[in-house]
Amino acid sequence: MVHVNDGYLNLRAGYLFPEVARRTEAFLRAHRGADLIRLGIGDVTRPLVPSAVAALKEAADEMARAETFRGYGPERGYDFLIEKILAHDFAPRGVSLEPDEVFVSDGAKCDTANIQEIFSPDATVAVVDPVYPVYVDTTVMARRAGPPDAAGRYAGLTYIPATEENNFAPAPPEGLDADLVYLCSPNNPTGAVFDGKTLAAWVAWARERGAVLLFDAAYEAFIRDETLPHSIYEIDGAKECAIEFRSFSKTAGFTGLRLAYCVVPKALTGEGPDGGRVPLHALWNRRVGTKFNGASYPVQKAGAAVYSEAGRREVAANIAYYMENARVIREGLAEAGYRVFGGENAPYVWLRAPGGDSWAFFDRLLETCEVVGTPGAGFGPSGEGYFRLSAFGDAERTKEAVARIRTRLPA
Amino acid sequence: MVHVNDGYLNLRAGYLFPEVARRTEAFLRAHRGADLIRLGIGDVTRPLVPSAVAALKEAADEMARAETFRGYGPERGYDFLIEKILAHDFAPRGVSLEPDEVFVSDGAKCDTANIQEIFSPDATVAVVDPVYPVYVDTTVMARRAGPPDAAGRYAGLTYIPATEENNFAPAPPEGLDADLVYLCSPNNPTGAVFDGKTLAAWVAWARERGAVLLFDAAYEAFIRDETLPHSIYEIDGAKECAIEFRSFSKTAGFTGLRLAYCVVPKALTGEGPDGGRVPLHALWNRRVGTKFNGASYPVQKAGAAVYSEAGRREVAANIAYYMENARVIREGLAEAGYRVFGGENAPYVWLRAPGGDSWAFFDRLLETCEVVGTPGAGFGPSGEGYFRLSAFGDAERTKEAVARIRTRLPA
Repeated sequence: MVHVNDGYLNLRAGYLFPEVARRTEAFLRAHRGADLIRLGIGDVTRPLVPSAVAALKEAADEMARAETFRGYGPERGYDFLIEKILAHDFAPRGVSLEPDEVFVSDGAKCDTANIQEIFSPDATVAVVDPVYPVYVDTTVMARRAGPPDAAGRYAGLTYIPATEENNFAPAPPEGLDADLVYLCSPNNPTGAVFDGKTLAAWVAWARERGAVLLFDAAYEAFIRDETLPHSIYEIDGAKECAIEFRSFSKTAGFTGLRLAYCVVPKALTGEGPDGGRVPLHALWNRRVGTKFNGASYPVQKAGAAVYSEAGRREVAANIAYYMENARVIREGLAEAGYRVFGGENAPYVWLRAPGGDSWAFFDRLLETCEVVGTPGAGFGPSGEGYFRLSAFGDAERTKEAVARIRTRLPA
Repeated sequence: MVHVNDGYLNLRAGYLFPEVARRTEAFLRAHRGADLIRLGIGDVTRPLVPSAVAALKEAADEMARAETFRGYGPERGYDFLIEKILAHDFAPRGVSLEPDEVFVSDGAKCDTANIQEIFSPDATVAVVDPVYPVYVDTTVMARRAGPPDAAGRYAGLTYIPATEENNFAPAPPEGLDADLVYLCSPNNPTGAVFDGKTLAAWVAWARERGAVLLFDAAYEAFIRDETLPHSIYEIDGAKECAIEFRSFSKTAGFTGLRLAYCVVPKALTGEGPDGGRVPLHALWNRRVGTKFNGASYPVQKAGAAVYSEAGRREVAANIAYYMENARVIREGLAEAGYRVFGGENAPYVWLRAPGGDSWAFFDRLLETCEVVGTPGAGFGPSGEGYFRLSAFGDAERTKEAVARIRTRLPA
């Protein structure tokens, strides 16, 4: 009989957001008519920007006529989009990339998960802890980590604690031994951003070790501090040790449309079985060509429209809207006595959970304030004791949530 | 230093379609102004059906307003689409499925490739040969097959020859030993369809062996013969041994939009490390939830519109258009002395390549008739000696191609 991938059997039950949804639904069943405010899951609420809407409709019209119909596109994305990406996301920051180093996809979630396939099954993985659960879960699914211990730490996976002491943006720890390291900056959930100096330390470590940094910059558009790097390729030598992931989800309202991209520089290599250097670009290109058929054409058109003058203005307004929410949460909770972090260069505010049990605080916040947040423990062992609030809500409702916390649940 | 996945290094260079494109471009450079007719790659040419265009635009309008905006959807697809799938694709054929046994995705290519992840790395694979190259290449990438021999047969992969003797639709061969078997029906490239009896033999074999059939029915809408099964679940017991893949690409013009689905019945199990039964549905559900974020919402709306009364009429007209092309190719080439197969319940015509060398025939057809087809050898060792012509072209151009072959290159 066919055997299953036993890696899956090591996964702990209840992925974070389904568990949040389960508890929320149970609360709603018990309290009909509750006036719930959701500051939990990181989905956006602002509609798709008008430039993208117009482009979607134009693309639909193109698809309606044989003369302008587009069938299969290039698996790695259309040049009309990739050119905009290079010109707007990289060139202004002094980063020069070749068009075919960019791979357009349907999501950074997919990309950060699928990228593991091009590495040896024996490759070891490290994550900054707490972190976006997808990195950890996909490592376990790929059998690069074993069963979890009582604290939820999977065997063989290296956890790099992100703590108040290291501003939630740790440098490579002494003696770190891993082939692949996921770095998320701005970080989900802590909202911390790596500064240039720390990122340079990561690049130096990776080059020395022959490791690859998997740099998830899905939230880079929220960076306000002009001294902070947006791309890891702003650091010298990063093209020889890093893959970068970007997303259209949170800036332009694409969570339901699905569009993202990743950068695999041609200078980046791994070791082959004979000890020779193998360009990772060739492997990823083969993977994309064989297992993917490109992102949806109208969605790529919508993505390109986001880089128009109007599109950039609309996206800037979206980001300003969310960052004002972040300010309201951060300052309001600080005034209510909470210890708060993040929210200045990221759409997430990270706070100490009074009492130290993050799921207990989840329940208390839900019951006392009818506010849904996300328990830090769901993002990894070092997340215990903390709690995430998202700035992606409606502005008025976010203010209302903060007002409730200040009056009903001060720290 | 990080090691790469050495499975990739076993892949033969030049995936089929890129090689076709390379030779075609070289020909065009050498013969400027050539009047090329492309009956090669299986992309469609009819535009997106009007119902789908209208739905795309309506969805764009919904995305433009905060009240109707949709962000992250269910990873496994919206119920509004799944309900239509069950009602139109399965219920009329007596197949009853639960809604959450259907997983909507962005492509059957992705699904047939990704499904391997839920099985043990040791699981063995068999393919009907010739076949859609993705099954083979992804098996090699997953290290379930080793390096190719001189004939292109990968070590450890079982090839089940589809020949004129078995009508290109082989029953399980005596002593077949494999955990996973890819079956494509209607077949790409041969155009052959499994009849109920042969499919029942496959189901019986798989249940006896504890194997899983990976049934790719992406072309089922082209079946004309009313006695032929469209879904493997029309065969008793198939829910305990088969996963089915479907696509919107070829019927409604979705190759550029990206929409597909697969069915993983809850009754289907594999063996866990302790010898117990593990439902594959739970593993795939976890994979989809962790590594995918759902198909694009406007595209799912367009997919649902395909099932409206108007949508079904439009799709039927598309299919009739392509199947008339298939008839023109099949009958024209037969009259020109070629031995032809398929094209009656599938949009592909499979023919004996005069001379027996399919790449040589590719070059001769290109040079003599300025017609691009696809060499059978590109679909596997048993494809050598054959050639595929696609019915997805423009009707007039298809007639012109056939006329050229009849006059310039009769067999």
